[in-house]
Amino acid sequence: MNSFGKIFRVSIFGESHGQVVGVTIDGCPAGIPVDIDQISDQLERRRSGKKGTTPRKESDIPEVMSGVFNGFTTGAPITLITRNSDTRSSDYEESPFIPRPGHADFTGRIKYSGFSDYRGGGHFSGRLTWGLVVAGYFARKIISPASVSAKLISAGGNNDIEKAITIADGRMETIGGIVECRIDDLPVGLGEPFFLSAESVLSSMVFSIPAIRGIEFGTGFAAASMFGSEHNDSFTDSSGTTETNHSGGINGGITNGNQIVFRIAVKPASSTGVEQNTIDLRSNKSTTIRVKGRHDTLIALRVPVIVESAAAIAFADLLTIDRGINLRSDRYK
Amino acid sequence: MNSFGKIFRVSIFGESHGQVVGVTIDGCPAGIPVDIDQISDQLERRRSGKKGTTPRKESDIPEVMSGVFNGFTTGAPITLITRNSDTRSSDYEESPFIPRPGHADFTGRIKYSGFSDYRGGGHFSGRLTWGLVVAGYFARKIISPASVSAKLISAGGNNDIEKAITIADGRMETIGGIVECRIDDLPVGLGEPFFLSAESVLSSMVFSIPAIRGIEFGTGFAAASMFGSEHNDSFTDSSGTTETNHSGGINGGITNGNQIVFRIAVKPASSTGVEQNTIDLRSNKSTTIRVKGRHDTLIALRVPVIVESAAAIAFADLLTIDRGINLRSDRYK
Amino acid sequence: MNSFGKIFRVSIFGESHGQVVGVTIDGCPAGIPVDIDQISDQLERRRSGKKGTTPRKESDIPEVMSGVFNGFTTGAPITLITRNSDTRSSDYEESPFIPRPGHADFTGRIKYSGFSDYRGGGHFSGRLTWGLVVAGYFARKIISPASVSAKLISAGGNNDIEKAITIADGRMETIGGIVECRIDDLPVGLGEPFFLSAESVLSSMVFSIPAIRGIEFGTGFAAASMFGSEHNDSFTDSSGTTETNHSGGINGGITNGNQIVFRIAVKPASSTGVEQNTIDLRSNKSTTIRVKGRHDTLIALRVPVIVESAAAIAFADLLTIDRGINLRSDRYK
Amino acid sequence: MNSFGKIFRVSIFGESHGQVVGVTIDGCPAGIPVDIDQISDQLERRRSGKKGTTPRKESDIPEVMSGVFNGFTTGAPITLITRNSDTRSSDYEESPFIPRPGHADFTGRIKYSGFSDYRGGGHFSGRLTWGLVVAGYFARKIISPASVSAKLISAGGNNDIEKAITIADGRMETIGGIVECRIDDLPVGLGEPFFLSAESVLSSMVFSIPAIRGIEFGTGFAAASMFGSEHNDSFTDSSGTTETNHSGGINGGITNGNQIVFRIAVKPASSTGVEQNTIDLRSNKSTTIRVKGRHDTLIALRVPVIVESAAAIAFADLLTIDRGINLRSDRYK
Repeated sequence: MNSFGKIFRVSIFGESHGQVVGVTIDGCPAGIPVDIDQISDQLERRRSGKKGTTPRKESDIPEVMSGVFNGFTTGAPITLITRNSDTRSSDYEESPFIPRPGHADFTGRIKYSGFSDYRGGGHFSGRLTWGLVVAGYFARKIISPASVSAKLISAGGNNDIEKAITIADGRMETIGGIVECRIDDLPVGLGEPFFLSAESVLSSMVFSIPAIRGIEFGTGFAAASMFGSEHNDSFTDSSGTTETNHSGGINGGITNGNQIVFRIAVKPASSTGVEQNTIDLRSNKSTTIRVKGRHDTLIALRVPVIVESAAAIAFADLLTIDRGINLRSDRYK
Repeated sequence: MNSFGKIFRVSIFGESHGQVVGVTIDGCPAGIPVDIDQISDQLERRRSGKKGTTPRKESDIPEVMSGVFNGFTTGAPITLITRNSDTRSSDYEESPFIPRPGHADFTGRIKYSGFSDYRGGGHFSGRLTWGLVVAGYFARKIISPASVSAKLISAGGNNDIEKAITIADGRMETIGGIVECRIDDLPVGLGEPFFLSAESVLSSMVFSIPAIRGIEFGTGFAAASMFGSEHNDSFTDSSGTTETNHSGGINGGITNGNQIVFRIAVKPASSTGVEQNTIDLRSNKSTTIRVKGRHDTLIALRVPVIVESAAAIAFADLLTIDRGINLRSDRYK
Repeated sequence: MNSFGKIFRVSIFGESHGQVVGVTIDGCPAGIPVDIDQISDQLERRRSGKKGTTPRKESDIPEVMSGVFNGFTTGAPITLITRNSDTRSSDYEESPFIPRPGHADFTGRIKYSGFSDYRGGGHFSGRLTWGLVVAGYFARKIISPASVSAKLISAGGNNDIEKAITIADGRMETIGGIVECRIDDLPVGLGEPFFLSAESVLSSMVFSIPAIRGIEFGTGFAAASMFGSEHNDSFTDSSGTTETNHSGGINGGITNGNQIVFRIAVKPASSTGVEQNTIDLRSNKSTTIRVKGRHDTLIALRVPVIVESAAAIAFADLLTIDRGINLRSDRYK
Repeated sequence: MNSFGKIFRVSIFGESHGQVVGVTIDGCPAGIPVDIDQISDQLERRRSGKKGTTPRKESDIPEVMSGVFNGFTTGAPITLITRNSDTRSSDYEESPFIPRPGHADFTGRIKYSGFSDYRGGGHFSGRLTWGLVVAGYFARKIISPASVSAKLISAGGNNDIEKAITIADGRMETIGGIVECRIDDLPVGLGEPFFLSAESVLSSMVFSIPAIRGIEFGTGFAAASMFGSEHNDSFTDSSGTTETNHSGGINGGITNGNQIVFRIAVKPASSTGVEQNTIDLRSNKSTTIRVKGRHDTLIALRVPVIVESAAAIAFADLLTIDRGINLRSDRYK
């Protein structure tokens, strides 16, 4: 059950150590120019190989399988894949029996009655977010001229992120972080009351990203300590501009034309270099595990482009619900 | 666009000052005993009339329209409604032109081209959560023996909630709060990877509730400041019990059999007794508004039963996806 | 599981001998004028009481519960109900144990483990089509200026329909018929390739109507005996007008701008006055049944308005997928 | 918008003359053995190269991209593709401007504002049914021990199908046919009342197959000429066995445990060797076209395996709605 959206639909498939990871984007307007270099630029932002990320060199090159003709989307489902190459399956030989704490090894094993692909997390791997970034390319075009921008604002509770990485590396540890995302120039009126509120759709997309533990809109958790008249955003003109933006650009689940603002908490990667306690499912006896697979000190470094993509996908769906799949093809020319 | 769920589907309808508010529950197993007193007990927890809530006496009595026969669900769609009675529409005469800060008056007006019912928030009103609580009754039966329990743990930044209300009332203000929800005895394996992760589905339901500004699972935002080995929950037996529960009972988007824990931030109600700045949309001139409608000092007081219901609905859907609509009817006998 | 549509969503609820039958229409544009007299006129075409239909006087008066304000749709979910009045539940006392041939008594009983409401077919009753006709009112407005028109073209294999009824009444029998439906002035481009082809969506709606046994588009079954060059419709101008219309206005699952034409087969009503063999489920012994409930000689007489509604609903969904929920509100003014 | 199903979801992608055609199957239980030879055997039944089918040698070899590990489904989305090889795009150079009668060239061009891939029908090509046959493999396993079997019962109005082909070939023509499909050993209770009735879901899948013009269940159109007591199927035992099977195994939209029977009308392929009138969209002038692409005399020859697959997919979805995704994994061992 791995697809999102009512009209602009995104489905991801693949496994960390299988043949490919891929994505299908359905319900995408025809006439969007497809520039593989632009997609690759976005993917580059998600890649490992930088300080704080795993040295695994992932093959991230996107191959178009369908839905693109003469450089434009055709209106048919768009599928892109990337081959997996730099994988060391032998790192994961014991995974089926000795679940790594914090990972989906245990839950996947039970859910799928022992048939899940456990190598490197299999289908649960963060590598699947490749497909979110690719889908984000199309989503950004759809919501344009709206623009999405996210950045890492703290790591390990520290604003100096370089320093936080150095401390963690010294302990063979991983650390988490906070990412803030802002969206400008969305029209008033996106989102549906209650179950498809802008917050519902955004949060549901954002929690699709592995390692996210919380989300808050506008003033967020701090709102719980404010008085009503302090938290309310006064209107200053009839286009809906507000003096403050405590609501983060959403009223009643509907975009109000001001900047969308939300923050997310990224947990430290579960794969640390430190020895941890776990259980051997064959013997029901305690054992320890030191994760051998290569890993990221600060996965939150990769998250901004993924969150931007997730947010763009969420609003591309809300926009196509509001305005239809097919009416907008002129604007991309 | 107001329905939730793939199999266990909940749709709510109605307006604050219209004929009724109501709910349709579809995809509900046959054979669940329907006890109106138990439903009313849940609704009572959501009612106003207590200290900190509006003196508006809502008519909350549920009337069964369909889907129940001889005291049991039939498998057909279940519709319940409640009549609106204690409404003073005259309180809202200027709403269409003078949007109340923090409410959906402005966004609803633009989204629906001026046709929305603006009286008391219309369809955007918190009164619609009546339907969530009713649907929650059925959802709780489905997920049983799992049980859901939520409570208000702070208000206005204060653990002494009575005191927080007294302070706010003295200023004719409203205040927010933090609600914590715990779910026990869910089976391992609920949730689907990525887009229907347990967090995605729960958060999407929770943000359907008006006034929620944030959600965090397990350790939540604090996880961003922890080391990986500190945050990971070690397994202590082969049934998946963990030593700690920083993950809040979810790994890879799938329930792991431990307690589900999440917290939500509730903003202060937008309708305060304090004068606020807004705009007259007819003249595009600034004006002030003092909300005349009756209101809650601390709406977060009503939220626990609504969050419990929302969480039960989310897991009822994930459980019926996993195990089907119709196989479980024996268990309710 | 009783709702249809991706954007323009229709859900029906209720039982033949319960409190009400009703319908919720979600994803409906704001600003559509709601004229209860026009809805009642459509419902009148579906009513019994004429020659060839049951003398049961159904209370068909629609009550608006939600989604309408000042005479226009608001964009929120629209719910209408009608009370059941002229019911004789005692007619159906043995239904749970002695299933009527051709009805859903047996399948409903097994599917819902004995909890289904068996009185008069319960939720399976043709009375539920009241909701389709009501939803059809809104759907027709959405697809306007397109117009839908259906008529009964034969009954019991006879073009003289009065005569066919007289023959059947003389034998205390029921008869079936063929209904033809035509839709004019739809734009080119509605329908999606394959799973949401215009034929897929139309047929799925049409088979939601009880008693339908077949559907054919354009030349239909006769196409199987034609040569390709004979069946193909030649284009005569660049707007897509074709010389013939064997395809019934659909190519590749997409409307081509010509008239949509389809025909459906309506079976004879299962409730006849003739004694029939069945089984007593308590004893597993053969028995006979003579249906005591009032019934229609020629239910196909009621079908045209229901098929028109079903077709309008199907195209309202395809149109809102293509063009969005909210952009079209001007046109209804 | 190219996916089918609520739980067992099938999405197809690709183009006739693009890189690949492919399919993603989501919501498929873990633990189903995957035998590529069995899949290839089904695909072989759909292939061209026999008398009456096009001499184009399609590369039909399935490549597994995801969702299979150690020979079994893992519970994650399953994607298979096949490369396109034997394509002659130059055959279709004029397609964008000179629409072939009966094809989707014109509707696709308008719907997608000129951006559709017109080569050999692009995404509208019958070649996309490759994905249905592949998905059918998994669907058959899910509904097992139920079995589906379809056959061509007439062609060009003739029971002697060889002869019908010879006549058509002599005229450089194409012919249609009638295919009958039967499904044995389905449990009682599949299908949901009204919008997901067994007929609705089956017909919606069947009309996803290009060239289908009609469908009828059980006695079908002939039912319109029968009396009620004649058409009704009398129950002969308490398991629901009926004396006759005019209903085709479905009552009230729900399977009744008897054999499912339906027939479909397949039109003659639109690509004939005969010259036809059409329009040049550039000049709006009449012109003629003689289709140069290779084609099938009797495409209905390929339809049985596709209809079987479509029917299996429809019931796999209804079965997983009823019984869940994950409970059934033991049975495939």
